[in-house]
Amino acid sequence: MQALVWNGQKLRFERSHPTPEADDGTALVHVLLAGICSTDLQIFKGYMGFQGIPGHEFVGEVREGPAELVGKRVAGEINFACGRCKFCLQGLGRHCPERKVMGIHGADGSFAEYMSVPVQNLHLVPESLSNEEAVFTEPLAAAFEILEQIQFNPTDDVLVLGDGKLGLLCAQVLRLTGAQVNLLGKHENKVSLLKGMGIHTIMLSAWEPRLFDIVVEATGSSSGLKMALETVRPRGTLVLKSTLAEPHTLSLALVVINEITVVGSRCGLFLPALQALAKKEVNVTPLIDGIYSLDAGAQAVAHAARPGALKVILRN
Amino acid sequence: MQALVWNGQKLRFERSHPTPEADDGTALVHVLLAGICSTDLQIFKGYMGFQGIPGHEFVGEVREGPAELVGKRVAGEINFACGRCKFCLQGLGRHCPERKVMGIHGADGSFAEYMSVPVQNLHLVPESLSNEEAVFTEPLAAAFEILEQIQFNPTDDVLVLGDGKLGLLCAQVLRLTGAQVNLLGKHENKVSLLKGMGIHTIMLSAWEPRLFDIVVEATGSSSGLKMALETVRPRGTLVLKSTLAEPHTLSLALVVINEITVVGSRCGLFLPALQALAKKEVNVTPLIDGIYSLDAGAQAVAHAARPGALKVILRN
Repeated sequence: MQALVWNGQKLRFERSHPTPEADDGTALVHVLLAGICSTDLQIFKGYMGFQGIPGHEFVGEVREGPAELVGKRVAGEINFACGRCKFCLQGLGRHCPERKVMGIHGADGSFAEYMSVPVQNLHLVPESLSNEEAVFTEPLAAAFEILEQIQFNPTDDVLVLGDGKLGLLCAQVLRLTGAQVNLLGKHENKVSLLKGMGIHTIMLSAWEPRLFDIVVEATGSSSGLKMALETVRPRGTLVLKSTLAEPHTLSLALVVINEITVVGSRCGLFLPALQALAKKEVNVTPLIDGIYSLDAGAQAVAHAARPGALKVILRN
Repeated sequence: MQALVWNGQKLRFERSHPTPEADDGTALVHVLLAGICSTDLQIFKGYMGFQGIPGHEFVGEVREGPAELVGKRVAGEINFACGRCKFCLQGLGRHCPERKVMGIHGADGSFAEYMSVPVQNLHLVPESLSNEEAVFTEPLAAAFEILEQIQFNPTDDVLVLGDGKLGLLCAQVLRLTGAQVNLLGKHENKVSLLKGMGIHTIMLSAWEPRLFDIVVEATGSSSGLKMALETVRPRGTLVLKSTLAEPHTLSLALVVINEITVVGSRCGLFLPALQALAKKEVNVTPLIDGIYSLDAGAQAVAHAARPGALKVILRN
């Protein structure tokens, strides 16, 4: 099969990579679309020491596996958990210490024609969804994860920091709670994608500092993190969505002085994301910045790495 | 009156500093004992830019003020709040943006013969308590603050990091919840103060890393903070008790990856602390490392600043 393969140094397009096989617990999925995420870009800088086929966002069609799935479109949760440990038994397979993570840790991912995915990780994609919508299930689920962790009230004044893919998705998801959602961004063209969604957008150039009940950090920069800490009210909550792998200089004194609660937030469950897409409660396709074929993978990654780029997608 | 005065450069003993006056809302308190806290030591390094009489831990006797208080022993909460803002109206005067803080910000403190304290901040000290016990009310309240912020279950496996004053108090307070409390320390003599209290103590030299449900960081060092982050289980809670004013190099990636909740925790309410002291549920006097008269203030501060020192107290 065709695949993009990361060998720790270089991303190579291979025309005849071995096709994976489905076994008892897995399904063979033909990837239709795969999204490039900032985590992939970090992997190409050495994050997690991953080698193999990257990619953890996809919509695909089941080719082999349980009869009720064959021929159906699916999205797949990225953590391949053991199913037996105390985290798995609490429904927290995404924290299973034995887990493999699709395209990130110990398991090949979606930048290929085919992939093998545990059946328990697959979710049927409602027919009303286009592939271009369904490929956003994973990043949208990551935004919904915030609602799994924190209680929002309609009286909350919320700030999302960052107008990247994650920030734009988080703002839309948090708006569903009825809270007042503000998004602070740098790029007029990105911020404007939220027009008409009941989200108050603020350009960084016009920023007048004030305090918020809940702040979501989605800039992926250490300066964004510092700003976020300074923008949470005493006893307020800061949600960290972006992983800053590099150590950075920081003081957590404000966390103590203002008794801030900082909540790290990562992958989420797919069901709320698929439901929101099906109900058209969120609008994801305007976030697509480019679609490339697999053999143009290097160009696609270069596009995704451009400052200000939104979602870049690979198609088979 | 006698007082220790910090002028931003030097701590000076003054034999005839002006005695404060009580007005309508305040009481004149004769300080009996005052404790030296790590925050005081930070003030002597420039923290908060404070100038005046430092000190925010004390037990004293009311000399002037409401008739029902005169002649009585009191402890006093350190945040002098406006009483009208939205934080005050929620009972969170300790986060009032207009607050002065005794001996830390805008108000003279307890390293003096007399001090003026808002009447609403005063709590009667039960007769059964010695002065040496009552002077611990403020730091003990800071330990109880954790219980105000976080739910503990008897099944929780808890680690307190640090065998300083705060760590030893936190371990005792958290033990009251029925949770399994472990304290990790460096100093045999300090760790041994917890003997017979149902707290599992671990020496750093014998530390075998494992994960805990809740970790309380009370080392006051950036290495402690790093260790704390690595010791919280996925979806667990890290309580930050010590203020690290200096920026330090740190990665919060683990907070995101493991979806850790980090809770900053500062001053607490006095009532639970006074009740626990009265019920002899905690044992504080073994933490006293030295008692000095006010005119030996410089020696007292030098003692408190010694590595491994516990509580140093000033008396009138």
